[in-house]
Amino acid sequence: MSSTYGTLFKITTFGESHGPALGVTIDGCPAGLRFDTDFIQQELDRRKPGQSRITTQRREADEFEVLSGVFEGVTQGTPIALVIRNTDQRSKDYGHIAGQFRPSHADYTYMAKYGTRDYRGGGRSSARETAARVAAGAVAKMLLESLGVTVQAYVSAVGTMKLETPYQALNLATAEENAVRCPDPVVAEQMFTYIDEIRKKGDSIGGVVSCVVTGVPAGWGEPVFDKLHAELGKAMLSINAVKGFEYGSGFAGAELTGSAHNDAMYTDTDGRVRTRTNFSGGIQGGISNGEDIYFRVAFKPVATIMQDQESVDVNGEPVTVSGKGRHDPCVVPRAVPIVEAMTALVLADMWLRSRNSHL
Amino acid sequence: MSSTYGTLFKITTFGESHGPALGVTIDGCPAGLRFDTDFIQQELDRRKPGQSRITTQRREADEFEVLSGVFEGVTQGTPIALVIRNTDQRSKDYGHIAGQFRPSHADYTYMAKYGTRDYRGGGRSSARETAARVAAGAVAKMLLESLGVTVQAYVSAVGTMKLETPYQALNLATAEENAVRCPDPVVAEQMFTYIDEIRKKGDSIGGVVSCVVTGVPAGWGEPVFDKLHAELGKAMLSINAVKGFEYGSGFAGAELTGSAHNDAMYTDTDGRVRTRTNFSGGIQGGISNGEDIYFRVAFKPVATIMQDQESVDVNGEPVTVSGKGRHDPCVVPRAVPIVEAMTALVLADMWLRSRNSHL
Amino acid sequence: MSSTYGTLFKITTFGESHGPALGVTIDGCPAGLRFDTDFIQQELDRRKPGQSRITTQRREADEFEVLSGVFEGVTQGTPIALVIRNTDQRSKDYGHIAGQFRPSHADYTYMAKYGTRDYRGGGRSSARETAARVAAGAVAKMLLESLGVTVQAYVSAVGTMKLETPYQALNLATAEENAVRCPDPVVAEQMFTYIDEIRKKGDSIGGVVSCVVTGVPAGWGEPVFDKLHAELGKAMLSINAVKGFEYGSGFAGAELTGSAHNDAMYTDTDGRVRTRTNFSGGIQGGISNGEDIYFRVAFKPVATIMQDQESVDVNGEPVTVSGKGRHDPCVVPRAVPIVEAMTALVLADMWLRSRNSHL
Amino acid sequence: MSSTYGTLFKITTFGESHGPALGVTIDGCPAGLRFDTDFIQQELDRRKPGQSRITTQRREADEFEVLSGVFEGVTQGTPIALVIRNTDQRSKDYGHIAGQFRPSHADYTYMAKYGTRDYRGGGRSSARETAARVAAGAVAKMLLESLGVTVQAYVSAVGTMKLETPYQALNLATAEENAVRCPDPVVAEQMFTYIDEIRKKGDSIGGVVSCVVTGVPAGWGEPVFDKLHAELGKAMLSINAVKGFEYGSGFAGAELTGSAHNDAMYTDTDGRVRTRTNFSGGIQGGISNGEDIYFRVAFKPVATIMQDQESVDVNGEPVTVSGKGRHDPCVVPRAVPIVEAMTALVLADMWLRSRNSHL
Repeated sequence: MSSTYGTLFKITTFGESHGPALGVTIDGCPAGLRFDTDFIQQELDRRKPGQSRITTQRREADEFEVLSGVFEGVTQGTPIALVIRNTDQRSKDYGHIAGQFRPSHADYTYMAKYGTRDYRGGGRSSARETAARVAAGAVAKMLLESLGVTVQAYVSAVGTMKLETPYQALNLATAEENAVRCPDPVVAEQMFTYIDEIRKKGDSIGGVVSCVVTGVPAGWGEPVFDKLHAELGKAMLSINAVKGFEYGSGFAGAELTGSAHNDAMYTDTDGRVRTRTNFSGGIQGGISNGEDIYFRVAFKPVATIMQDQESVDVNGEPVTVSGKGRHDPCVVPRAVPIVEAMTALVLADMWLRSRNSHL
Repeated sequence: MSSTYGTLFKITTFGESHGPALGVTIDGCPAGLRFDTDFIQQELDRRKPGQSRITTQRREADEFEVLSGVFEGVTQGTPIALVIRNTDQRSKDYGHIAGQFRPSHADYTYMAKYGTRDYRGGGRSSARETAARVAAGAVAKMLLESLGVTVQAYVSAVGTMKLETPYQALNLATAEENAVRCPDPVVAEQMFTYIDEIRKKGDSIGGVVSCVVTGVPAGWGEPVFDKLHAELGKAMLSINAVKGFEYGSGFAGAELTGSAHNDAMYTDTDGRVRTRTNFSGGIQGGISNGEDIYFRVAFKPVATIMQDQESVDVNGEPVTVSGKGRHDPCVVPRAVPIVEAMTALVLADMWLRSRNSHL
Repeated sequence: MSSTYGTLFKITTFGESHGPALGVTIDGCPAGLRFDTDFIQQELDRRKPGQSRITTQRREADEFEVLSGVFEGVTQGTPIALVIRNTDQRSKDYGHIAGQFRPSHADYTYMAKYGTRDYRGGGRSSARETAARVAAGAVAKMLLESLGVTVQAYVSAVGTMKLETPYQALNLATAEENAVRCPDPVVAEQMFTYIDEIRKKGDSIGGVVSCVVTGVPAGWGEPVFDKLHAELGKAMLSINAVKGFEYGSGFAGAELTGSAHNDAMYTDTDGRVRTRTNFSGGIQGGISNGEDIYFRVAFKPVATIMQDQESVDVNGEPVTVSGKGRHDPCVVPRAVPIVEAMTALVLADMWLRSRNSHL
Repeated sequence: MSSTYGTLFKITTFGESHGPALGVTIDGCPAGLRFDTDFIQQELDRRKPGQSRITTQRREADEFEVLSGVFEGVTQGTPIALVIRNTDQRSKDYGHIAGQFRPSHADYTYMAKYGTRDYRGGGRSSARETAARVAAGAVAKMLLESLGVTVQAYVSAVGTMKLETPYQALNLATAEENAVRCPDPVVAEQMFTYIDEIRKKGDSIGGVVSCVVTGVPAGWGEPVFDKLHAELGKAMLSINAVKGFEYGSGFAGAELTGSAHNDAMYTDTDGRVRTRTNFSGGIQGGISNGEDIYFRVAFKPVATIMQDQESVDVNGEPVTVSGKGRHDPCVVPRAVPIVEAMTALVLADMWLRSRNSHL
């Protein structure tokens, strides 16, 4: 009972890793938006498996179909339904885990919660569900683009290998030019080699995705519970394998004094209120202040590894779980479009909500 | 339009820093819970200002009144309304900022969003709102206590001064024995001295609150968007001054390999499925697995400092903002009960939601 | 878990008949609305008990206090909390029913649902809760007034005594000039006499309230589930004692042919699209079409009567329930402001929702 | 932004009359329910067009596909997605109304709201959307069946032709034996003849559907806003062409005195608390009391008729709208399964909500 996200730009996803299809219904997208199906496919292609040898070798075209909500190329204000068929399920790969719980997967917790589970590829708990999010996020991106807002994520760490350069000094657009999605080509190359070594060992490795949003005017976001950064945090933490979220100065900000951390204010030559620094990460009191919004998302190493592990079966008896199936040795390259999609969904929702702030 | 939190155990807060009162309505608390007003007052006392010289000197008794929902000492299943009167508002302290925007406060963003603002003490954006959360959280705690669940937070860092001991090696109950709420008395003493120095300089300092939840059985939490840790993250990030959230291995987990990070599973002598390690932080796929849940919350330094700062007024003209009013030099000691309250609210909600997982 | 109404203009009420207070929090009222406390009091006065000898003799001033959300006479976009103290509870009047279930009251069903109940005056199930709705509805009315929308209800039937005149031929404003709130003075006089006779017999009588909304432009309302008339219907049926709702042609419309019932369309001299007739009641497909919105609400006779009735006690043993306490012999005169309040709340919500229909 | 219904048993529908497909996602159905696809198809067949000469001649097989949420014939607690392809769209039938507003349709109001519309067959405003509701309702019925609850609707009036027999004296199961779905074969025959005459004239006629629910125990439903009958009323009023709703004594109850209308209580030989009469319609204070729940729903005549009508085009110029396309001369026979579906959805939701009433 939690497959819906958003208050006004509201999405509901469905689908399991090895079921017939994944999909999403977007309810609340305003009418009058030009609907670019090519763009949606491009976004899905950025997330789809099999992009390089450091991603899972499952082969899915991830082509989608629009079932409703668009007429003559324009949104109608009615629910937009998008469906992506699964084509390369290979469920037989998972027969061996029907009765076992894989360590650090959701196998055991789903069984504890529901008393049953679709064990094929993790069923609903699989990150394959995020394909539906990316499709919906592409629609949110179209909406934001019409408002001058851009969302750009990139890989800033793989294991202990970190890109320390501040985002302002990077050309973020270049992140798409390599398989790791790191906007520094030298670091990207190192990361690629490292991930490939991990892959050969049958192991996996964690990483960090950073994200920058530009063009949001002051005034988006809600006070108290649905603060803009609280919604961003929830959205990020809802992505598979995420263990942490920080925005602006983040955990490092907790080490500073107020006199060092406060963002002095001034009026720029265009008459716009600005801040000299941006420890606030573009958000004050949960509401955007017109500066860039930026945050970091920590991903754990993928739980599926090609090594024997100690575990239990559904009867609680000890078993050795042997790695099989296809998996990503490092999730962050493919997580980049997912982070962007969830960010776009949060912002589209916040924009709609903000329209009713005053008379 | 975001003063409500929760799906089934749903709270709605109201009130401004210098308005007549703060309050909360809890809708969805099941009937039949014994209602302990003394306990609620104790929790409010843990949060209230003026506890020591390192907290704000505003004097509020923070006494509350129960306006509905309880009859003969038992909850009725109907909305529980709790009200806390403001008594020491001193609004005149804030006249000087009526026309100014304080750096790193929500003054400017509220004005951008609403076109108006209650400037007295930050109005709705003030952390005084969290008194209502603590009152509601106390009710959630009563509910959890009846289920054998305990929630315990503590200060684990003040600025760069960190308590590195793992929580399992601490006696968390001792956190309440000192003004800092750090469960190591030696470190607590150092932190107290440090905060007091910061206070004397008219500055402020950030910090980290850690939280541990015990007794949650396997099966609480929801898949996909409302994952247990995603809701915890949102709840924490909705607290004033929070900049980051991580659970289990957190950001450090992003540096590890899967073979190091996966939590091996076994069955203990009681027949309960357990994990050998707990990098997962008690949550897998968004659902509790029966292990301890633990997480960390980063707080920025309080924005109000007793130093001159560069800013602009409501017309965009440059001004020097001078620190006045009463404030906390470090928010984390008083944040401990707030973190606990929000944690309890999330868990109470998740428990109710989990009751409907299967037939 | 259902004391909240509305999606964007969202109210949450609390309070029991004989508890300390009733109240409401309005979350989502836009900032910038001039807040007229006198008007709110006037609306509460229209609903309050003791207005004439045909209403309950309970004496409540129904004065309210604003606890938040308003600063310098203007709404701030933050939650508006309004509280009304109970002053004339006389709970001892209800001691005799602590162990009994009154026929056609909610005594038995609350016990079945909650396993406990506040028996004093019906507790949460009492129509006294509607005072909070009227206070919130007054705020919604202020908002609608700024948009040129008026809401006017009146009594159109008491028992079998009916006002058959179409609303267009009535001066609805005169409804407030008599105790029955019927806009035909002759019929009002007859109704008053009839209700007074019923009162003397210790009995009660049902009735109908009609409501007319003018000034709503075309385009308010939502398709599919939250149709404008579906929300109006739910809102009306949520009022105590309501048994039926019909809008436009209503049940009578079910007897007609399409050729008789369809509303022919034309463009008036101002260039506005209009309909020749208005069987549609101002709503087509759940969305307003710019014509008057009108509907009728059926109220059952009040269940509290001063006569002996067959019932059972909490142990299931047969008892004779004897009428005591204070009650209205006919609820419709005091229901008029409640119907208006709920109508205004629905419309305020629909207006806010409609602002996001298109880019 | 209103294609979702339900709080815990939550459905989201999508699809237009002449788009590629209709569908529904059910989020919140508990795990462990045996899933009977044949039953869902049977329910869809009861609603589908072309059942007899008195229903629309559009030919749709209304076959559905399960895209998620079911594994090995059992619900998994995850979202259940059902899709029904449109096959007989004949959009060219609607080219002539692309620029016109049909009287008493939603053409004009959708344009006013969205600034655009899918004119083919009414797009999203078409009753074809209810196929998705019937599919979801079938799942709700399965759930209710496991709890001993049955929902049975039937046609009780066509135009002025009424079935006056109380439901207790009817064999409701026989309603399915004739094309009208009236459980009195003699009246059914008269109704059929009457509707067929209306059809030959190119006109349409309204009617009433009655519904009876048995087996609901005392304690389902919520107080205040989400009263069981308020939710039923909203659900019914959300069905296309519905103009009114009444439950229990309904509008007729407004004519009675309390002494005549109150339902005396007693304990039956099984120890169950019962009422002697059932003017309350099985609901008191918004919560079920264990008696049969019954209500009536008024449907206006279908707006599409084969006659010339006065209207305007999208530029406001006068036009004569000529009837074309396929339509039902009387909607109530096919509305019976829709009323049942929405009733089942409300009850499934209320059951889940009621599980959390007390500890």
